[in-house]
Amino acid sequence: MDKLILHEEPISGNCYKIRLAAALLGIPLERRIYSILKGETRTTEFLQTVSSFGRVPVLQIGDATFLPESNAACFYLAETATAASSTPPPSIALIPQSAMRRAEMLRWMFFEQNQHEVNIATLRFWTHVVGEKNLDPSRRAQIEGKIKAGEQALDCMEEHLAKSECGWFVGDSITLADICLFAYTHIAHDAGFDLARWPSILKWCDRVKQVQGYVAMD
Amino acid sequence: MDKLILHEEPISGNCYKIRLAAALLGIPLERRIYSILKGETRTTEFLQTVSSFGRVPVLQIGDATFLPESNAACFYLAETATAASSTPPPSIALIPQSAMRRAEMLRWMFFEQNQHEVNIATLRFWTHVVGEKNLDPSRRAQIEGKIKAGEQALDCMEEHLAKSECGWFVGDSITLADICLFAYTHIAHDAGFDLARWPSILKWCDRVKQVQGYVAMD
Repeated sequence: MDKLILHEEPISGNCYKIRLAAALLGIPLERRIYSILKGETRTTEFLQTVSSFGRVPVLQIGDATFLPESNAACFYLAETATAASSTPPPSIALIPQSAMRRAEMLRWMFFEQNQHEVNIATLRFWTHVVGEKNLDPSRRAQIEGKIKAGEQALDCMEEHLAKSECGWFVGDSITLADICLFAYTHIAHDAGFDLARWPSILKWCDRVKQVQGYVAMD
Repeated sequence: MDKLILHEEPISGNCYKIRLAAALLGIPLERRIYSILKGETRTTEFLQTVSSFGRVPVLQIGDATFLPESNAACFYLAETATAASSTPPPSIALIPQSAMRRAEMLRWMFFEQNQHEVNIATLRFWTHVVGEKNLDPSRRAQIEGKIKAGEQALDCMEEHLAKSECGWFVGDSITLADICLFAYTHIAHDAGFDLARWPSILKWCDRVKQVQGYVAMD
């Protein structure tokens, strides 16, 4: 496998997803740390070499390939690790084998980016990292809507997990759907959500933490 | 292949993606039409049989499987159609063969759901379908931010397409990345975005429309 470098910001749940997936798969990652608040992903060097979009995470594969978008990077790691050529094979496969299950996994990964991250991660960044008093009026005006939409996303997860026989989002073992949703869910209290309201989610968080190879967020 | 039924609302670009992918792959889809404005995806019957989340699109596979999330449904169709067992094989494969290219395709599909759809599709629904004067203050307050974020998403696409040798998002032929991004981009004028500002995007829209099997939005 090519050398892998994760360009990341440790406060970001999107970056953490990739570290967690790599840890469970037993894939070594070199880490390059940037501070978003200090503007370190907006320097000329970052924009010219890592990503012209000025965002992290970016998974660097070898010398010349730079892959943005956390969930796509997780997919790449899991797919590459489980390729027939990989030795030794990983002890867990984070992508299910059937097309139907893969689609169900992707369904939750798209849900995460479209209905969960845009609300819960953004609220956490605004209120926990930047600070509500430092927000411009346009952002402050969005807080109410994001709280409501974040609660709806957690309701969807709760309903699904409460019906899940094995306690995972798809099938009978952990997949990338769990990893990608776990990242911002297990720290949702930073964004003002009290997970005691969603008991199946709380149990599922504990289940993820007990998987062999689990690493915590910094 | 199991019988496929698309539960959909024709004004939705997310629903259109699935119709377009199926058309290019030569997969027949039965259509069930619902009006979002009339609340037809919130009826007891819909919530109990199609999706308890009250959203479309949902791709029904056989009698008992219901798959939400447009990009996951597109992935399922493309992956199933190109499976070795499928006869006749489709004339185009919408998912690249290499793991690296697949990850790049997914990168743009996650970008679409996280940075494009949440801004451009939502603005279009609010201003073009619901009407700005009918919006509650919380939504009206979000318009300015969504215009700016929508422009940034189009800037990202423009920069990438301007450097693309073959004119597609990934590799040298159309993939699901193009289909998923095309859906709300080619109607971005409904949301107030004048695509004349993004010339590479305009050319790429024409390229998509010329692919054999292309179907227009209703």
